[in-house]
Amino acid sequence: MRAVVRRGRELVCDEIETPIPGAGQTLVRTLACGICGSDLHALHHLDHMVELGQRAGGMGGGLDPTRDVVFGHEYVAEILEHGPGGGRFKPGTRVCAMPILMGAAGMEAIGYSNTRPGGFAEQMVLMEPLLLEVTNGLSDHQAAMTEPFAVGAHAVAMSSMGKACVVLVVGCGPVGLAVIAALKSRGLGPVIAADFSPARRKVAEIMGADIVIDPSTESPHGRWSALGVHATLAERGMGMMMGQPGKRAIIFECVGVPGMIQALVEAAPPQSQIVVVGVCMQPDTIEPYLAITKQIELRFVLGYTPDEFAATLHQIAEGEIDVRPTVTSAVGLEGVAAAFKALADPEAQVKIVVEPGRL
Amino acid sequence: MRAVVRRGRELVCDEIETPIPGAGQTLVRTLACGICGSDLHALHHLDHMVELGQRAGGMGGGLDPTRDVVFGHEYVAEILEHGPGGGRFKPGTRVCAMPILMGAAGMEAIGYSNTRPGGFAEQMVLMEPLLLEVTNGLSDHQAAMTEPFAVGAHAVAMSSMGKACVVLVVGCGPVGLAVIAALKSRGLGPVIAADFSPARRKVAEIMGADIVIDPSTESPHGRWSALGVHATLAERGMGMMMGQPGKRAIIFECVGVPGMIQALVEAAPPQSQIVVVGVCMQPDTIEPYLAITKQIELRFVLGYTPDEFAATLHQIAEGEIDVRPTVTSAVGLEGVAAAFKALADPEAQVKIVVEPGRL
Repeated sequence: MRAVVRRGRELVCDEIETPIPGAGQTLVRTLACGICGSDLHALHHLDHMVELGQRAGGMGGGLDPTRDVVFGHEYVAEILEHGPGGGRFKPGTRVCAMPILMGAAGMEAIGYSNTRPGGFAEQMVLMEPLLLEVTNGLSDHQAAMTEPFAVGAHAVAMSSMGKACVVLVVGCGPVGLAVIAALKSRGLGPVIAADFSPARRKVAEIMGADIVIDPSTESPHGRWSALGVHATLAERGMGMMMGQPGKRAIIFECVGVPGMIQALVEAAPPQSQIVVVGVCMQPDTIEPYLAITKQIELRFVLGYTPDEFAATLHQIAEGEIDVRPTVTSAVGLEGVAAAFKALADPEAQVKIVVEPGRL
Repeated sequence: MRAVVRRGRELVCDEIETPIPGAGQTLVRTLACGICGSDLHALHHLDHMVELGQRAGGMGGGLDPTRDVVFGHEYVAEILEHGPGGGRFKPGTRVCAMPILMGAAGMEAIGYSNTRPGGFAEQMVLMEPLLLEVTNGLSDHQAAMTEPFAVGAHAVAMSSMGKACVVLVVGCGPVGLAVIAALKSRGLGPVIAADFSPARRKVAEIMGADIVIDPSTESPHGRWSALGVHATLAERGMGMMMGQPGKRAIIFECVGVPGMIQALVEAAPPQSQIVVVGVCMQPDTIEPYLAITKQIELRFVLGYTPDEFAATLHQIAEGEIDVRPTVTSAVGLEGVAAAFKALADPEAQVKIVVEPGRL
C-alpha cells in the first residue's frame, strides 16, 4: 500500500507492506487523518520525544527513531475486514478509534510506532473493541476531528472549571480551539481567547470565544477585573475583607513553547489554575516564589480517556460542536510533506487533513 | 525597648522606640517567638524578597530593605494595654495572632516591616480583632508554634488529600513536620517522610510519620507500589485495564531549593499532586513534557487563612497536635544572631524560640 513514511527526518511517499489484522483487530481503509502539532515536532525531534517518553516511563519503549514511522493518529476509516473472531461492524462502516493497540508487545501508539502505520497510509490495523461508528452523516473531515477535540474535552474535564470561573485560552491553534469548543458546548465561560494571528482569532470567535484578544496590542490580563476576578493580591485581599471572594481565573496554556508557563505565572491573578495543554518539549524556567505567593495551581494534562473520546464523537455528531471551521485544507499523500511546511504559518492554516485516497 | 534589629545584613541588639497602639490595636509583651526559615533567608536576601513580592503584587510595597527591620512572626504575647476603644482581653492575657496589621497605610506584615517590629522585640503592636486567647495552660513555646503549624494545616487543606491517597513529605524541617502533624491529626496517611538528617527523621517519626526514609540510602519512590500507588505509566495503564485505579500519590515539597520540583516531577507516579510548600526564591528549571506525560499537578501554597490559624491553636491546646518535639532550643535577644547561624545545621536544631524577656 501507499504511505507517507518518516525516514531520516524527511517525509517520503513509498510503497509499504499492508498490515494484517490479528485476533481482535480490524483492517481499515483510511478516509481522512489530521496532521497534529506533535507530528510536526516528531518529524525533526522524534529521538528526543522517544527519550523523554522513556524517562516519563511511558510511550516510546518500542519505537526506534532511526527506523521508518508512518504518522497519523487523528483518523476516520472504513472497515475492510476483521481478524479472527471479529465482526462487530460490517465492511464499509465508517469508524473512529483511539490510536492505541494492545498486543503481545504491550501497548503501541498507532502513528508513533515502527510496526503500526498511522493514518498517513492507505490502510491501518485498529483494535476492534475501540471502534466507534460514525453516525448522523458526519463528513470524513468532521469525524477525523474527534481525536484533537477529545484533547480539549479532557483538558476541561481535568480543570477546576465551574460556573464561577473566567477563562483565558492562550493560543488558538487546534488545541486552543478544541478547548474553546469544549468549554462553550458545556455552557462555561466567559472565555477570553488570545492569539497573535488574526486568522486564528477569527476562528476562535467562530468557535464561540466571548472575547478575542491580540496580545501584541492588548494584555488579556487587563480584562480580569471587569469580569469579576481579583487581578492582584491587593484586590483579592480587599475583596476577601468585603466578603467578595471574586471569580476564579482558569488559564489554558495551549502554545507549548518555553517561557509560556512563567509568563502566565507572572501575569495570572492570585489563586489561578493554569491548565498546561500545550506540549513544551524543552526544559523551561519558572520562578516558584511568584507561583507560591499567588498560590497558583499548574495542572499538566495529556490525551483523553476512552469515555471522553466517545463523548466527543457524539458531541460532533449531535451538532453540539461544529469542528468544520478548524479544517482549513485537505491533501493527498503526495501533499503531506508540503502540508507539514504550510502548517508553520498560522495565518494560512489551522488543521490540514490528509486523504490517502485522494489523487 | 530592646530588640534585635536587621541592619545592613547583620542582626544587632539595640534600643528602639516602643510602639504605641492606635485604635483597634493592642500593645503586647512578647513572650516567645520562633525563628522562621524565611527570616534566615531575609537576613541576607531581603532586597530580593521585596522585589519578588512586588512583582507578585503582594508583600513588600512599603518595606525598604536598606532600613531597620525587626523580624519575628511566630509569636505568643501578653496583653499590656489597648489602644483607643479596645479592651476585649484583660492585661496579662496570653494571646496569639496572625502577623498582619491593617492600618491607614494598608496591610502590613508584622516582622517584615520598617515600622511594625515583630517578635524579636520586647513589645509589639497587634490588631485587636485578630487576637486569640491561649488556653489550657499551653506553654509559651507551644503557643508560639501556632503560626508555623498553621502553614502545615493550610498546605494539607489546599491539597487533594483524601482517604485513597499515599503521602510523601520531602524535607522534615519545621514546614515538613507541620505538614506531617496536620495529616496525622486528621487521620490521613500513610505518610512517608524523607530527610537526609537523622535528627530530623527522628522528629518526623515522633510527629507521626508512618515510614521514615533516608534519601541517601533509599529512594522514597521505591515504596509506592507496595502502598497501592501505580508507580509508573505502564503500571497505571495495566491497573486501569484491570479496574484497579490505585491510590493517588500526594507529595509535599518542603525543602524549597532549586531542582527539587523537577526531581519530584521526574520521580513522581503518574497523576501525582505535588504540593509546593517549600519557598524556593531562585528561578528553577522544570521539564514540562515529563509533567504533561504523567499529568502531574503542581499546587503552590502559602500561608493560611484566619480559620486555619485559629483551628491550629485549638488543635495544639486540645492535645491533637504535640508541637513540643519541634522546639529544640530557646535564646534571649542576645542569642538571636548565633541562633540564626545554628539553624544552618539540621542535625543540631529544628526550631529555636526567642524569648525577649530572657536574660
